[in-house]
Amino acid sequence: MTRKIDLNSDLGEGFGAWRMADDAAMLGLVTSANIACGAHAGDPMVMAETLRLARANGAAAGAHIGYPDLAGFGRRPMALTLRELECHALAQLGALAALAQAQGLRLTHANFHGALGNLSFTDADVARVLIGAICSFDRDLAFIGLPHTAAAHEAERRGLRLVGSFLADRAYTPAGTLVARGQPGAVIHDRAAVAARVAYLLAEGRVRTISGEDIALPVESILIHSDTAGALDLAETIRAAVLQAGAVIQRFDV
Amino acid sequence: MTRKIDLNSDLGEGFGAWRMADDAAMLGLVTSANIACGAHAGDPMVMAETLRLARANGAAAGAHIGYPDLAGFGRRPMALTLRELECHALAQLGALAALAQAQGLRLTHANFHGALGNLSFTDADVARVLIGAICSFDRDLAFIGLPHTAAAHEAERRGLRLVGSFLADRAYTPAGTLVARGQPGAVIHDRAAVAARVAYLLAEGRVRTISGEDIALPVESILIHSDTAGALDLAETIRAAVLQAGAVIQRFDV
Amino acid sequence: MTRKIDLNSDLGEGFGAWRMADDAAMLGLVTSANIACGAHAGDPMVMAETLRLARANGAAAGAHIGYPDLAGFGRRPMALTLRELECHALAQLGALAALAQAQGLRLTHANFHGALGNLSFTDADVARVLIGAICSFDRDLAFIGLPHTAAAHEAERRGLRLVGSFLADRAYTPAGTLVARGQPGAVIHDRAAVAARVAYLLAEGRVRTISGEDIALPVESILIHSDTAGALDLAETIRAAVLQAGAVIQRFDV
Amino acid sequence: MTRKIDLNSDLGEGFGAWRMADDAAMLGLVTSANIACGAHAGDPMVMAETLRLARANGAAAGAHIGYPDLAGFGRRPMALTLRELECHALAQLGALAALAQAQGLRLTHANFHGALGNLSFTDADVARVLIGAICSFDRDLAFIGLPHTAAAHEAERRGLRLVGSFLADRAYTPAGTLVARGQPGAVIHDRAAVAARVAYLLAEGRVRTISGEDIALPVESILIHSDTAGALDLAETIRAAVLQAGAVIQRFDV
Repeated sequence: MTRKIDLNSDLGEGFGAWRMADDAAMLGLVTSANIACGAHAGDPMVMAETLRLARANGAAAGAHIGYPDLAGFGRRPMALTLRELECHALAQLGALAALAQAQGLRLTHANFHGALGNLSFTDADVARVLIGAICSFDRDLAFIGLPHTAAAHEAERRGLRLVGSFLADRAYTPAGTLVARGQPGAVIHDRAAVAARVAYLLAEGRVRTISGEDIALPVESILIHSDTAGALDLAETIRAAVLQAGAVIQRFDV
Repeated sequence: MTRKIDLNSDLGEGFGAWRMADDAAMLGLVTSANIACGAHAGDPMVMAETLRLARANGAAAGAHIGYPDLAGFGRRPMALTLRELECHALAQLGALAALAQAQGLRLTHANFHGALGNLSFTDADVARVLIGAICSFDRDLAFIGLPHTAAAHEAERRGLRLVGSFLADRAYTPAGTLVARGQPGAVIHDRAAVAARVAYLLAEGRVRTISGEDIALPVESILIHSDTAGALDLAETIRAAVLQAGAVIQRFDV
Repeated sequence: MTRKIDLNSDLGEGFGAWRMADDAAMLGLVTSANIACGAHAGDPMVMAETLRLARANGAAAGAHIGYPDLAGFGRRPMALTLRELECHALAQLGALAALAQAQGLRLTHANFHGALGNLSFTDADVARVLIGAICSFDRDLAFIGLPHTAAAHEAERRGLRLVGSFLADRAYTPAGTLVARGQPGAVIHDRAAVAARVAYLLAEGRVRTISGEDIALPVESILIHSDTAGALDLAETIRAAVLQAGAVIQRFDV
Repeated sequence: MTRKIDLNSDLGEGFGAWRMADDAAMLGLVTSANIACGAHAGDPMVMAETLRLARANGAAAGAHIGYPDLAGFGRRPMALTLRELECHALAQLGALAALAQAQGLRLTHANFHGALGNLSFTDADVARVLIGAICSFDRDLAFIGLPHTAAAHEAERRGLRLVGSFLADRAYTPAGTLVARGQPGAVIHDRAAVAARVAYLLAEGRVRTISGEDIALPVESILIHSDTAGALDLAETIRAAVLQAGAVIQRFDV
């Protein structure tokens, strides 16, 4: 049976007159959109337009839940209580789902952005509250996330579908988590190396960690960054590597 | 058969550390809460807490949709396009409904706040878009609103349940709309006069307009202002007038 | 004596992680920066960085005062009172000036952005309050603005230095004001036509209006749009036209 | 010579339609206002109105610099860089000073609010940057702050006038810092005990710490909380205690 791979990307990260990525072009290349919900980025019009683009391109549309911090783009840790995290996650899910429904679209998944995402990798309480918010909102949503993290474990524990996601241009630790940005070698800039990692993952189901040994990485999707220079080129590189490995690129939910 | 009257009030109008009204006390007196959705007031925690209070008091909980304008409290007209109004209304409905659902609560109604509410009285396009947003979100929601307005007509046209609301302390024009604030006599400050107006409405189904003639006012609910000095006293006055008229105070949806 | 021409541009229009224009490149081409002050765009770090770039390029640095409306980028009319306009203008001037002073820089001018700018063209009360705010903050600031507008008249009446600004790619009415966007012919897209208008203005001191007759246009500066596609190219076109006309490009205050 | 004592209070903490304290009443009781600058609270109109009230009451007016966090009221730690702290502090100082100048008023002092204030007690780098921002803005401003803190030491090192402030209702550690809220005994609720502490400080120049020994506390001002229940009563209690101790209540800068 042919291996299927979803490509997911963080989109809808504009606000008002500002834009972050070329969402229309990215949606010609990826199959799942993680859409900002007005907290770290996005406003109702940007959200609606990104949903429209996802639908027009046949992409899966999910909620990219982030800290309520436009000025910091959700990238800086915030001192929110668990209750505040829960309320913010619910409000974001509800807002995006309502805009989707008005277009005859149903959300397919959710995941967590930036500093909130990082926290959900390691903090079991945060993972419990955030995954709990998704469950209480809609148990049919999938969670696209990194395997071997607190959020992934919690999704499995709660019976939420976990769609493992691979970051092809980031180094992994032997524990299966990401090497922190700022550490040497954390980001892989070489195109060929990124393509080779995708090929290796698809062939072997494993990633070579920064310490040299392999670990298993059960993934169904690859994250494509949208907001870096050369994002479209990198997306093409990864698409080509996937196809060359004999896999088909297809949204995770079909 | 005994006349039933709902009492509705605009609640959840805090933000962060700020509070506007004594929501807990008001929810001991009214039967329906119009809850701010984070646009003109409210944040996810205030929204969740107001929903909790509504539930604890057995009050109906609805979305009070307003302009995205915390600095202006939704009281100043904004130059939004119809599409922007639609997107903002949907996002607000969805956010509040998601927070309600997580508490096992279902929204019962929606209505419009401040300057957006005023516009929905007279602008048929705005009424169409706003009522349309409610319909596309949940056709089972009622619209609590002033009779004889564009929004009320549109709700009826779309088959949305219209719950007519009476402003006991505001003067009416012969067309059945409110005399604009700032006009002489627009606001009725005298407690006894307010009580008399309630009694007259319940007995006759009519209101005496500012020009002296009567008009029919088909209402099921009375709006109780929450954020004015003496709000609780006025609420007690109106409650007493309703009970003295032989009506029962009961949420509109039971 | 050689004609001197200042080139001014609206810069510092980012917010948080978002950017609007290539400020560094523009500041290699223009001589005066109108810097957003955190209301319609800009945050303290963007403001400080834009000031630093202006200083590094020897450009004049001024306050671009706008409506407090990040979501609308200051482009939509807002229902603010005259007192609110005054307070917002003062706070913006003060914030930018404090950031400038910390870099050993002194603001040279101020002007008005977007919908607020449009209002200041025609509304004498608004012009009085806004120009009054500049005067009460620092009488040594110049006002870079369109001649033949309410704001320009008020600047002259108050003894504020008026630096007339020319919009080379916009059509003019016989009254010397801009033809509204949306009107046919309002924006001149043809590069050669823009260059010809600059040449004509520098040679004759006049502009050909949309009705065909000429009017005098006393200007010392030309506005270069920063945020449109091809902004850098258009800037180069205008620079070349100025130099070819035998004028020197120099900041207005030297 | 009679001992003089300033009473300072955090005021201007409203935003838009929301109010936090009864500023007008407080300004009848205190002699220095620490005015929010639009970051954790305040907007340009609230700032201008609070300045007007300070002026009308003959109170000293200073900038209360806080985190840019309306939703958290500046009470939660934020992950800002030193450069971001500097830029935010400068923008807040400049905005308030410009509004003051337009009323013919000059700022007299500055200090730090909430979580930023707490950080300035212990973090030498933060203290250096924040006190540095005050110095680069206006060396004639005083710093009203707690003695024995990083910010106080830095103010002294930079030659900024330090006006020591006493929190009469908070317990002190032997190091002269505040016992953290949440610790047992951190807040002193008993009126008589608060009055006794004021009397003891004025008589002896010392405060009894939570461990029972005394430490010297060189103070010229007492902080009066504005936003707690019974704030006005507590202010009266402290005023009475000061007067009974034979001191005069007078703004610190006269």
